[in-house]
Amino acid sequence: MNSLLQKKESARVPEPTLRRLPWYLSNVKLLKQKGERYVSSTQISKEINIDASQIAKDLSYVNISGRTRVGYEVDTLIAVLEDFLGFTNLHKAFLFGVGSLGGALLRDSGLKHFGLEIVAAFDVNPKLVGSTLNGIPIFHSDEFKAKMQEHAVPIGVLTVPIEIAQHITDYMVEGGIKAVWNFTPFRIRVPENIVVQNTSLYAHLALMFNRLNFNEIK
Amino acid sequence: MNSLLQKKESARVPEPTLRRLPWYLSNVKLLKQKGERYVSSTQISKEINIDASQIAKDLSYVNISGRTRVGYEVDTLIAVLEDFLGFTNLHKAFLFGVGSLGGALLRDSGLKHFGLEIVAAFDVNPKLVGSTLNGIPIFHSDEFKAKMQEHAVPIGVLTVPIEIAQHITDYMVEGGIKAVWNFTPFRIRVPENIVVQNTSLYAHLALMFNRLNFNEIK
Repeated sequence: MNSLLQKKESARVPEPTLRRLPWYLSNVKLLKQKGERYVSSTQISKEINIDASQIAKDLSYVNISGRTRVGYEVDTLIAVLEDFLGFTNLHKAFLFGVGSLGGALLRDSGLKHFGLEIVAAFDVNPKLVGSTLNGIPIFHSDEFKAKMQEHAVPIGVLTVPIEIAQHITDYMVEGGIKAVWNFTPFRIRVPENIVVQNTSLYAHLALMFNRLNFNEIK
Repeated sequence: MNSLLQKKESARVPEPTLRRLPWYLSNVKLLKQKGERYVSSTQISKEINIDASQIAKDLSYVNISGRTRVGYEVDTLIAVLEDFLGFTNLHKAFLFGVGSLGGALLRDSGLKHFGLEIVAAFDVNPKLVGSTLNGIPIFHSDEFKAKMQEHAVPIGVLTVPIEIAQHITDYMVEGGIKAVWNFTPFRIRVPENIVVQNTSLYAHLALMFNRLNFNEIK
């Protein structure tokens, strides 16, 4: 199978499967630390409370085969999952909006271990422009297109105030950004071929508060 | 209607509605900045590409009524939504694990504007214990239960390494934490009455990489 075909196959994975695979990965990493060399889907199932048949089905999307009675080799499963999830390739990103959350993400070196490398940030605040944060240079937003020609970065991290969220998204897409990681609580619009990943911490907070409140009064 | 009943009603809101309400809120805030005094669900619908009837239905869970032809009063809608989503009450939280992501969250003052106040953090690293970050004190993890008696904090933010994620969760719950905001890619287990909100940045990255990859090859 050539690499293009293999990629195409992996791209068909359903979203719920993609959401569960990182759970399996972290669980198998833990089993490795405990000295296990093989792991079965039944074993993972017991640990994380997901049906073993579901786990086997999810893992069937990944290019790995288990052995009857023995299961999957732990080292291989970790390597294959990390590769499959894109954590072993560094994907370059620009970050837009070095406010409180943007600054926090620039400081989070952990993202690099999961395949995201923020190579530069953009803002209009004269106090920030020209400085660096955690070694990452901050440029004026006007410099984005020029920097894009140097780096050809596929991902834009959106941490601007909501009133300019759509404007900056349009600006990114015009400049050639292919995927927007949207941390604003604003529902941005993009052309069909552009990927949007919404990660609204505030929506998650609202959900948590609501359920907490429900538990307190019932 | 007394306040308990009102709370109980609000607690029945379905999750998809709770996920959409922050979008409406940010959109209406934007309209306010543009000088609008009234807004209809049709208007919001045009902006964010969600069916107007869906928006009207979602807003029916919130304690507000629109006027025919005129719509909702912008100021009232903002106030009611912010209150409903829990952003106007400060909910106290402890953070466990002042690593890269934990430190980033401590520095993100934006969380306070959305109702989350991290009052203290816990770690075992002697370089961190006894210091403060963004004004937030960092204590040794052993001090958690004593601090809990001072503050009676309902929320625990989990940003520890995966290998201790379950252990620290159990420790939090034992100490009286009612909701865990889990930033680890580990699927934690809790008793039935404890709220878990999973926010795995890494799972979101995996999804984004996968779809980006798919777009690139199609």
